[in-house]
Amino acid sequence: MKVLIIGASGTIGSAIFRELEKDTDLISASLNSGDYNVDLANVNSIINLFQQTGKIDGIVCSASRGVVFKPLMEMTVEDYLTSMQQKLIGQLSLVLEGIKVLNDHGSITLTTGIMNRDFVKNGSAAAMVNNAVEGFVKAAALDLPRGIRINAVSPALLEESTDKYSELCPGFEPVASAKVARAYRKSIYGIQAGQIYHIE
Amino acid sequence: MKVLIIGASGTIGSAIFRELEKDTDLISASLNSGDYNVDLANVNSIINLFQQTGKIDGIVCSASRGVVFKPLMEMTVEDYLTSMQQKLIGQLSLVLEGIKVLNDHGSITLTTGIMNRDFVKNGSAAAMVNNAVEGFVKAAALDLPRGIRINAVSPALLEESTDKYSELCPGFEPVASAKVARAYRKSIYGIQAGQIYHIE
Repeated sequence: MKVLIIGASGTIGSAIFRELEKDTDLISASLNSGDYNVDLANVNSIINLFQQTGKIDGIVCSASRGVVFKPLMEMTVEDYLTSMQQKLIGQLSLVLEGIKVLNDHGSITLTTGIMNRDFVKNGSAAAMVNNAVEGFVKAAALDLPRGIRINAVSPALLEESTDKYSELCPGFEPVASAKVARAYRKSIYGIQAGQIYHIE
Repeated sequence: MKVLIIGASGTIGSAIFRELEKDTDLISASLNSGDYNVDLANVNSIINLFQQTGKIDGIVCSASRGVVFKPLMEMTVEDYLTSMQQKLIGQLSLVLEGIKVLNDHGSITLTTGIMNRDFVKNGSAAAMVNNAVEGFVKAAALDLPRGIRINAVSPALLEESTDKYSELCPGFEPVASAKVARAYRKSIYGIQAGQIYHIE
């Protein structure tokens, strides 16, 4: 099975790579490294990526930059639009373009995150964006052609990120990235669709 | 209590008006009618609206145009952006600008809809937009100043709309708009915050 991992150089992407490399034909893509470069904020870059990969069986997106964290009173509409750019609009573009190169019964696995169910200070954009992706995934799963499936993984705070996010996420129970990575395996090799895997 | 109703000429807006008029000082605004005109897709129009209303105790938004319904395979990123324009970005702008004119302990009540929990054909944008608004409401409620509260009402298919939506929503149980309107009263006069009222 041939699977494209976008954001393969990140913490989650690396863990997915380790989880899958023993039995899966992996292709990696990210902003500045991997087999191919892709900028999720640019739809032409996504189209270009799929022209290079050709037909594949799975698409995984674990990239998630650019969400703005600010007190609500300081947020602007532009801050919400910026926050959507990669994690929402980028992942949407990836789905719309990715369907075209997916083989029958292929899968798409997106990434959301805990902050729309375990809220944090200054996190209104994160909650909005994660929830938007999840709403899309649940509905899109019912409308995909050729047995193609879509799911999302919503990881808790990663063990590897506890230092970085200790102030933002006080008392949050960390989860091992290897455990998170197994949810992507379930999405790729399983039969489920329209699921949001909360990995905690 | 002085409450602004945006979209007061619509089915839900009219029902909210009937529910509240006996004991509430109501101001109405919509695209083409009411005490004031406002275009939610235009932030300057929203700013202008609040300059005219002055200080108020409640803001209700029941306007929701412009969500695109199309098969996933025909959707474009622009269709999702169009779908966000009024119901997501418009309601966000309304909150960000509205906070400035709300009195202490005032309330904001937004509107979502059933299509992010009871999915319909061609409804991926509707599911995405409704879920985005709900994620925002839950997080924003925790970050509002001066005792200001925010909630959203998510109505099922309205009795008044069953003919119009009979194909899109087969077998959906209709709900009376008067019942939906009472949820807005709960949000305005109650103490709850960060709630999504599913009215079915």
